[in-house]
Amino acid sequence: METTELYPPFTVGVDLGGTNTAFAIVDSVGHIVATDSIPTRTPTVEKWADNLASRISRMIADNRLEGLVKGIGIGAPCANASTGCIEAATNLPWPSPIALVNMMESRTGLRTVISNDANAAAIGEMTYGAAAGLKNFIVLTLGTSVGGGIVCDGHLLSGRSGFAGELGHVTFPFASDRLCSCGRYGCLHTIGSADGIRETARRMLAESDEPSVLRDIPQKEMTPKKIQIAARDGDRLANLIYEFTGRCLGKAAAEFAAVTDPEAFILFGGVSKAGDLLLKPMREAFLEYALFLYKDRVRFLLSKLRDADAAILGAASLPLSI
Amino acid sequence: METTELYPPFTVGVDLGGTNTAFAIVDSVGHIVATDSIPTRTPTVEKWADNLASRISRMIADNRLEGLVKGIGIGAPCANASTGCIEAATNLPWPSPIALVNMMESRTGLRTVISNDANAAAIGEMTYGAAAGLKNFIVLTLGTSVGGGIVCDGHLLSGRSGFAGELGHVTFPFASDRLCSCGRYGCLHTIGSADGIRETARRMLAESDEPSVLRDIPQKEMTPKKIQIAARDGDRLANLIYEFTGRCLGKAAAEFAAVTDPEAFILFGGVSKAGDLLLKPMREAFLEYALFLYKDRVRFLLSKLRDADAAILGAASLPLSI
Repeated sequence: METTELYPPFTVGVDLGGTNTAFAIVDSVGHIVATDSIPTRTPTVEKWADNLASRISRMIADNRLEGLVKGIGIGAPCANASTGCIEAATNLPWPSPIALVNMMESRTGLRTVISNDANAAAIGEMTYGAAAGLKNFIVLTLGTSVGGGIVCDGHLLSGRSGFAGELGHVTFPFASDRLCSCGRYGCLHTIGSADGIRETARRMLAESDEPSVLRDIPQKEMTPKKIQIAARDGDRLANLIYEFTGRCLGKAAAEFAAVTDPEAFILFGGVSKAGDLLLKPMREAFLEYALFLYKDRVRFLLSKLRDADAAILGAASLPLSI
Repeated sequence: METTELYPPFTVGVDLGGTNTAFAIVDSVGHIVATDSIPTRTPTVEKWADNLASRISRMIADNRLEGLVKGIGIGAPCANASTGCIEAATNLPWPSPIALVNMMESRTGLRTVISNDANAAAIGEMTYGAAAGLKNFIVLTLGTSVGGGIVCDGHLLSGRSGFAGELGHVTFPFASDRLCSCGRYGCLHTIGSADGIRETARRMLAESDEPSVLRDIPQKEMTPKKIQIAARDGDRLANLIYEFTGRCLGKAAAEFAAVTDPEAFILFGGVSKAGDLLLKPMREAFLEYALFLYKDRVRFLLSKLRDADAAILGAASLPLSI
């Protein structure tokens, strides 16, 4: 860190995952000053909050940043920005709802803002990443689940209960034969998530006799990354898997464009590491399917948040913007 | 008007239609103080603007409201709020783009705001109508065309080029065999517009032998209103036409809910006059198809803007809110 100039104000970004809680002090342009983590699996949420609050306070003191930290941002599944609570998060070990904002503000004296992962990613891209300067864009997070963060006219859309941008649960005919974890058929989640890609691979391998290095990988061990490596090595089926996925995302983007008129779609998360393997068919399908008003006006970008820190940076950006 | 108490400030609402331009002075709670209209079909747009500006000034003077009028709002097809221009309006007699805001501001000295019909309807509902007090809702205009006006977190969504909320051009599997005027298949417009209802009637009459009073109406003379009258008189096929339409709208609303998390959908325009014939199946289909997060939280309402004045009231509300 010695050679990096830092720009106040600082914020603390917290990525609350099912297993670990990672956090960092971040400056206003996205430099990470210090990082730490604690286990999420503690007997009670109060214990976890006590631990997190004391570690954050110590980290601020160790870096001599007392009085210079503007707030804490927490990205978590099912976090409702308007109530300050986590509602019905199935991957956390504590009963819901969890009044996270109150718990952290009372323990640290720092203003705390929470948001779901995809919305945090959208604010992160706008603050430090690929959406710098953009006022109308949609972030699609393609990972364990598919989420959306929509910025329209410079505002992150929250909606009545903080559930705007659930783009993983918009349904499409191209997925009408895929059952989603939400109990419905056709959700974009069933195509663009890691499980979705895995299922596409399973189907394509079953429907064809074509040789593929993917045939040597047991279904349980199939990952987006392995398919990406195979595709880059020229494996035709692996390429077709991403082409199918990209085209589905492009058709979906054509519909989303008519709702909020964005200037860009930004892909975030593990599945998006396929890069052009995904962006090229996405762009092509968008041009085929979008209403004329939106054609040729929309860009398709990859997240510019550094891989390992993306979730923390998204969270850290929240107190700067909300 | 003698018995109505009026509440300043006043605005002028202009409904720019293909044939006539209707306008009125409106008070801040939606009382109409005076109305007038001029023909739209003049040789040049400058002549039309001269005429409109002088008639508005005279109307303001006649009602002794000089200095009390806050601005002019104009609702028009393809009006782009961010540029102040009408872009590519096929139903107007003049070449596009038309720099409407500049033309009216220079002639009247009054701040002028334009918006497309559906967005004006949304602001109108929020200012004087069914959405009073709501911060998250979607207006669906069901008339000659299908449009959308989306208010999220208290803001009317505009988007990069003012083309947010083009919900009539989101596509759905239930309309995949219907060609839209935009050149694509499956648009909600092909179901929810007057032409869409007419086409549904044609298909249902052709596919069944059931007696119906609608069989006596030539296809060219079929209107949403005639089908509404037949349905209220107990005609089964007429009821099925609105049930099908309402269910399609409910499925569409289930998808839109996941994008902006609204607390209400408000139906506006001629087709919506079917009232419960449309709202009941819409609500039922929404409950069947929506993600659990949105179920039981969304209301389905009819416009409360008075029929004859709805477009003018929508336009008049623009200077109060934008």
